[in-house]
Amino acid sequence: MNDPLALASPLGRVRIVLSRTSHPGNIGAAARAMKTMGLGRLFLVTPKIFPDAQAEAMAAGATDVLANARVCASLDEALSGTVFTVAMTARRRELATEPLWVRDAMAATAAQLAQDARGDVAIVFGNESAGLSNEDLARCSRWAMIPCNPEWTSLNLAAAVQIACYELRLAEVGAGAAPTIADASDRASFDEVEGLISHFESAAVSSGFLDPAEPKRLMHRLRRMFSRAGLEKVEVNILRGILSSLVDRTKQRF
Amino acid sequence: MNDPLALASPLGRVRIVLSRTSHPGNIGAAARAMKTMGLGRLFLVTPKIFPDAQAEAMAAGATDVLANARVCASLDEALSGTVFTVAMTARRRELATEPLWVRDAMAATAAQLAQDARGDVAIVFGNESAGLSNEDLARCSRWAMIPCNPEWTSLNLAAAVQIACYELRLAEVGAGAAPTIADASDRASFDEVEGLISHFESAAVSSGFLDPAEPKRLMHRLRRMFSRAGLEKVEVNILRGILSSLVDRTKQRF
Repeated sequence: MNDPLALASPLGRVRIVLSRTSHPGNIGAAARAMKTMGLGRLFLVTPKIFPDAQAEAMAAGATDVLANARVCASLDEALSGTVFTVAMTARRRELATEPLWVRDAMAATAAQLAQDARGDVAIVFGNESAGLSNEDLARCSRWAMIPCNPEWTSLNLAAAVQIACYELRLAEVGAGAAPTIADASDRASFDEVEGLISHFESAAVSSGFLDPAEPKRLMHRLRRMFSRAGLEKVEVNILRGILSSLVDRTKQRF
Repeated sequence: MNDPLALASPLGRVRIVLSRTSHPGNIGAAARAMKTMGLGRLFLVTPKIFPDAQAEAMAAGATDVLANARVCASLDEALSGTVFTVAMTARRRELATEPLWVRDAMAATAAQLAQDARGDVAIVFGNESAGLSNEDLARCSRWAMIPCNPEWTSLNLAAAVQIACYELRLAEVGAGAAPTIADASDRASFDEVEGLISHFESAAVSSGFLDPAEPKRLMHRLRRMFSRAGLEKVEVNILRGILSSLVDRTKQRF
């Protein structure tokens, strides 16, 4: 099988199954949603229209996911070889199985991937208007719902795929390192920030703005503000440069 | 201003700002994404094409969000009156402010809504290909990123809106009650499940399958399985009915 992602990572053992999809654009948008979250294995159960130019257009650069998609004649075929399956449902149904919220369902999926190093898992999405049938649901290990505005739950299919894949990625690999952008060496040190605050204090006193007998409260607020801001070295230098030149001017004047 | 959601709930104080959007379909899909999560206030900064039939089509039933959308001449106009703003960015940039992951940024937004009962907050999204400019980012209180496949981060604009609104809804109102569907009275009680297990045990013994001197291990596994399954009363009755009729047959045969 031409399935390059299958063994690369635990996410390579995840199948996204779209059952009886009506609109090919949604298949393309779902492929794009999958790829942004590192998922590549798309299974399509009797799609109404596929392949299709609209699917390609909506996939943007995720045409590889579409090219590798497997078209299946039945849900059973799509689930064959899986060891754990999550059915996504928008409706509460009068059946025994209690659905999980999607976050918990994806945590359970990640736990399954960690527990058992073999076997695929599947996340299953139904048709745009009808959803999954009760027969489809009865084939799945867990049912999951996406929390929605109770007065308007009309989530687009690809949007539901996006949320589920997002939650699965977070559960499986986490967000990754904090999205820091400033180089650590650019950040002002504690001492540099304290130096700046002292500079503000002496400037405020020398200008007559601050009573030198009672500087605490105002300085505390300043300190809190700068701590929150998370200053860079260069910003400290700019601020101190401004203060210095102001203090110099003050001295010239008096 | 015709803005029915504005004061109804804390989510009514949230503006979704789309800056310089190129494709009207994305505006419609974003409106739909917002409405599924209970958000209704859309601000459009110099959209390339709006209003447009494609926006209407992609909004599905969220045409009210489009109808109430406010078109602004600048980001400053869209942010006027806000007290807290989050800029969504896909790229790491060489600037001082550290972005948060979207989950943390939406928690901070919900905290702001809780802290301060007045004042709007805004979540700001840039153009499909260029994102937000550095000048736009410098106007916002926080920057946020959506964790993505580092090798392919091409998230669709409306998909990004969907994830941010989903996280904000979870942070603000939570998922809500567990999505239970079976009526509590339909669930089998502990005693009914125990009755079923005893029934299995006596049937297994009477059939000769189980050594009555050493039933523990097998019964333990059965019990664990039924506990996990979370049986309904009617399922217990069905299983016991089958057991009873099998046991009756066994008796007839011997």
